[in-house]
Amino acid sequence: MEKSINAIRFLGVDMVNEADSGHPGIVLGAAPIMYQLFTRHLKANPQASNWFDRDRFVLSAGHGSALLYATLHYAGYDISKQDLKDFRQTDSITPGHPEYGDTDGVEATTGPLGQGISMAVGMAIAEKNLRHRFNMKDLNVIDHYTYTLCGDGDLQEGVAMESMSLAGHLGLERLIVLFDSNDIQLDGPTKDAVSENIQLKVESMGFDYQLVVDANDLNALDEAIEHAKKSDKPSFIEIKSVIGFGSSVAGTSTAHGKPVGKEEADKMRKTFGFDHEPFETLDEVYTDFVDKLQKRGEEAHIHWQETMDEYSALYPEKFEELEHIMHREIVVDFDKLLPQKEIGGSEATRATIGEVLDKLQAEIPEMIGGSADLSGSTKVKGIDGNFTKENPKGRNINYGVREHAMGAITNGLALHNMKSFSGGFFIFSDYMKPAIRIGALMQVPSIYIFTHDSIGVGEDGPTHEPIEQLSMFRTMPGINVFRPAGANEVIHSMRYALTEKKTPSAIVLTRQDVKITHQVDYETFKQGAFVVSDKKDFEGILIATGSEVELALKTQDYLEQEKGIKVRVVSMPSMERFAAQSAKIKNKVLPKSCTKRLAIELGSPHLWYQYAQDVFGMTTFGKSGKGDNVIEFFGFTKEKVAERYLNLE
Amino acid sequence: MEKSINAIRFLGVDMVNEADSGHPGIVLGAAPIMYQLFTRHLKANPQASNWFDRDRFVLSAGHGSALLYATLHYAGYDISKQDLKDFRQTDSITPGHPEYGDTDGVEATTGPLGQGISMAVGMAIAEKNLRHRFNMKDLNVIDHYTYTLCGDGDLQEGVAMESMSLAGHLGLERLIVLFDSNDIQLDGPTKDAVSENIQLKVESMGFDYQLVVDANDLNALDEAIEHAKKSDKPSFIEIKSVIGFGSSVAGTSTAHGKPVGKEEADKMRKTFGFDHEPFETLDEVYTDFVDKLQKRGEEAHIHWQETMDEYSALYPEKFEELEHIMHREIVVDFDKLLPQKEIGGSEATRATIGEVLDKLQAEIPEMIGGSADLSGSTKVKGIDGNFTKENPKGRNINYGVREHAMGAITNGLALHNMKSFSGGFFIFSDYMKPAIRIGALMQVPSIYIFTHDSIGVGEDGPTHEPIEQLSMFRTMPGINVFRPAGANEVIHSMRYALTEKKTPSAIVLTRQDVKITHQVDYETFKQGAFVVSDKKDFEGILIATGSEVELALKTQDYLEQEKGIKVRVVSMPSMERFAAQSAKIKNKVLPKSCTKRLAIELGSPHLWYQYAQDVFGMTTFGKSGKGDNVIEFFGFTKEKVAERYLNLE
Repeated sequence: MEKSINAIRFLGVDMVNEADSGHPGIVLGAAPIMYQLFTRHLKANPQASNWFDRDRFVLSAGHGSALLYATLHYAGYDISKQDLKDFRQTDSITPGHPEYGDTDGVEATTGPLGQGISMAVGMAIAEKNLRHRFNMKDLNVIDHYTYTLCGDGDLQEGVAMESMSLAGHLGLERLIVLFDSNDIQLDGPTKDAVSENIQLKVESMGFDYQLVVDANDLNALDEAIEHAKKSDKPSFIEIKSVIGFGSSVAGTSTAHGKPVGKEEADKMRKTFGFDHEPFETLDEVYTDFVDKLQKRGEEAHIHWQETMDEYSALYPEKFEELEHIMHREIVVDFDKLLPQKEIGGSEATRATIGEVLDKLQAEIPEMIGGSADLSGSTKVKGIDGNFTKENPKGRNINYGVREHAMGAITNGLALHNMKSFSGGFFIFSDYMKPAIRIGALMQVPSIYIFTHDSIGVGEDGPTHEPIEQLSMFRTMPGINVFRPAGANEVIHSMRYALTEKKTPSAIVLTRQDVKITHQVDYETFKQGAFVVSDKKDFEGILIATGSEVELALKTQDYLEQEKGIKVRVVSMPSMERFAAQSAKIKNKVLPKSCTKRLAIELGSPHLWYQYAQDVFGMTTFGKSGKGDNVIEFFGFTKEKVAERYLNLE
Repeated sequence: MEKSINAIRFLGVDMVNEADSGHPGIVLGAAPIMYQLFTRHLKANPQASNWFDRDRFVLSAGHGSALLYATLHYAGYDISKQDLKDFRQTDSITPGHPEYGDTDGVEATTGPLGQGISMAVGMAIAEKNLRHRFNMKDLNVIDHYTYTLCGDGDLQEGVAMESMSLAGHLGLERLIVLFDSNDIQLDGPTKDAVSENIQLKVESMGFDYQLVVDANDLNALDEAIEHAKKSDKPSFIEIKSVIGFGSSVAGTSTAHGKPVGKEEADKMRKTFGFDHEPFETLDEVYTDFVDKLQKRGEEAHIHWQETMDEYSALYPEKFEELEHIMHREIVVDFDKLLPQKEIGGSEATRATIGEVLDKLQAEIPEMIGGSADLSGSTKVKGIDGNFTKENPKGRNINYGVREHAMGAITNGLALHNMKSFSGGFFIFSDYMKPAIRIGALMQVPSIYIFTHDSIGVGEDGPTHEPIEQLSMFRTMPGINVFRPAGANEVIHSMRYALTEKKTPSAIVLTRQDVKITHQVDYETFKQGAFVVSDKKDFEGILIATGSEVELALKTQDYLEQEKGIKVRVVSMPSMERFAAQSAKIKNKVLPKSCTKRLAIELGSPHLWYQYAQDVFGMTTFGKSGKGDNVIEFFGFTKEKVAERYLNLE
């Protein structure tokens, strides 16, 4: 309905005008796409917006937030007109870019380009995997589509190309990409920055391509989406639109991010035959959405509930599993499944994670994950085989050399209630950084596992040896970083990560063998730092993490035997967890009275000055050589650490 | 010559065996490609390996380092047989992955996939730009090709797709990508991770595609390269090879990264009819390279020198410019061109950089750069128009929304002696992180300019508001980070970045206006930190950077007027530079005796505990709202900072 589309257009334009900030171009150009998708296709129940079997819609072009909020408002989501007026104001639920958790109906935090489409791929994987694992005969308890709207900018991002390449490979037939193709980007016409044949490109990656020559042609849009839903490939619909449609700057980059102004908006209303006041909302448009979206959604929801009832009766076990997934409930007796290991053994913590993951996945149906082409080295692998066209029940995702997409897809899976995990060399966390930040910002419990965590990597050399990566994640808000010292801390790290309902975790592991030097109970571990070895009347403290706890213990012995000096050794697997403790607990582990403290870590030293007087860390890049040699080259020996300790004031 | 190829193969295999570490698969499979490229096409003079007009070759598949070193050894570069035996040993010149600066003939540091091919794109841009700017009539002083060898993994990386998309758009006809297509990656057959039509994909991006069905078919290789050199598009030659060719694990992922072992190597030598000892090198192979590579190279070099002589006589000014470029000499009177501005004005530091860049580029011919689709916002733009097919003399690179490629291409340009700079929102430095790390590791003087550096971004909200990014780069070795407080510090930051011959710089700027609160001379600025405003008998110190220096000064006033407390204000535009100063200078700025210190910065607080007792920073993500409101929301007001100061012990 033309009127509904214009109602969305002007609501969006008014929001941007009121805020004097935002992006009217996409609102005016892509409103018909949103309208047609929401009223003709999207399966959703705005009154129960978290209904598990809803279609997912991700606005990858996150700068189109005004378009999204205006549509959601009319569609019946919990966004008031006042919320729309508060667009882009501090602490409103209508922030400049869509933020998951802040706003009803927003399925993912978007804005940084390429992330939304990649998270949509993750959602589509989750849907397909669950569909094949849980649907029984004609009881389709999982039966929905994933849509994403993206712009030219999204498709220039490498992460989008990685994700689309994977989506094509995996044959995600329920993924439908709507490309708002308006030939304009921020710096001018797209032709100044790109001259690709997008049809060939997406077809080369296994997508079904369709062209809709005019975004205002509602029938053509409808037919294309209908066709896409039936395709056995992921779909890509290029929809030619005019950025800033109807405004005086239509079709230019000026339309992208500049409010059209109240005067011009009024003029445009006349031209559009939309004779209303700014922010005036129309009953007939609400009714239109009730008729075309809400009723459809409610019926589908009721039908699903009936199906679920039948399902629960016929397949009680599977029903229970699904219930756990839907409510993000992890039901495992961790202590029993993963008891602390005996002290004295030695294993690479990447080996521990492999073992831990296998055991946990057998018990936890929502676990799914994989590695970026290094599963043989990371030991991070899903069970039940590779998730493929032929084996859609598989829970291992063979990401290929696509780390960035892996990060974003892990988030998409988490948004779809999966306990998703990724695996990669720690150095390649660099490639994943933008995605991990979105995970932290959204507060979804993604689990990013990293191995090969230091110069201990050895021969592969400085290109493969993390230095600043621990600091990179520890200074990021909203994420827990774990660098466990030995197998027993790995077990607890994974437990923490799995039982988190919001905050994502990064678990950072060694390539090389590490001694099992201690056991620790889970409650103590959760403090983030604890005493591993104490001496009566200690005069100083060595703080270490991961593989350096062993070195700290050796240094402790050495100092006592050679110098008669007694020190305490503290393991601090998680700075974030420790920072969150009470002063009392902190003081118990690191007594204020004892300022003679040396931190030891095979990484950038800077952060440790919070807790230590001096730091034995890495201030340069690493070296290529045998792991032990490299570690020694940089002085990480008990003698040199002791020397450094003795120099403390 | 078959024998030469096998000589390279077995030298590489022996190296990996000796180190018991490395990647024999590519050595055995791709040796013919290297041989044919080096002996038939590559224009290089191993005796003068830095000759400016040489062809560039980048091994994007950096794990093939043994193949590269073996080839370079026979080709006459300064790599001895002992060096080859020391492959992957600590402090050898033959590290696990090729490292620029460590090894003669290595043009770029590679290993993290996708970076090499992207840097090659940067080199090809430099070549084309210089060629069109400097060649006169038939005096071709710039006249070379850029080759890169990449594997399946490279082409799965998003950054490679971004770079190739840009290369196609720019029509870099002298870029030749050799794709070692062996259908295998680390986790198994490539078909488990990717099912693309690579021909369609690269053609869609504007590449000329050719297929060589057998890497061992030297004639076919030769013809393909010959054709590629004549193409008016960038070229992509898919060369089908067998990973681990001739070994018992040929054609499997086992061949990728596992030494074949000495016994099998000996067996293989027999099968190959290569009847020699391990590490035995053959005179006839040296001779082969002398005849086919060195003589050709020397002649070309001499011819070039003659051309240059003629050029210097006819075009002395252009000759001088080119000389500066070749020797990385910046000839500018900075003080005169960019005097310190008057105190009292107010401007966004992104505005300052725009002005500074314009002035500098007019004087410095080697400057070239651009932004990732945000030049209107970042103000970071090259001069002389966009570098395009039609205007190859243009020095502005319109990167499109390809931040990661921009980072790598900036490095590639720097490797080709350009003073290259990039521009983007600071939040999108996340996308560039892997490339910037390579820049820091290589020690090339890339200049990464970032704007919109804090929650001051405002309405765009937390997805666009940097928090941990300053810490991310400050904890990275090998890079200088500048966060200048006002226009006058911007001027000096850019001067430092430009005159650096090795270390890259990140310059971090505001979106919002910042007062020009002080002037500073360059020598003082270079200390990294200095006193901006002092009070006699100050009892404490406020340390700040960027936009917070103004806030610190306001707090200083407030404390004196309201509480009668005197504090010093220190600006610390560069932690790295300050850390590198003598204890004496440090003590002058931050006297040890004065421990009452508060740091103020709109970023993660953690690093500041090195210098301050407490930190007024950001421990959460930001908010969407008007910039000033958001800053106030998080308490960055003189009253709250003063309160925090008063709570110091």
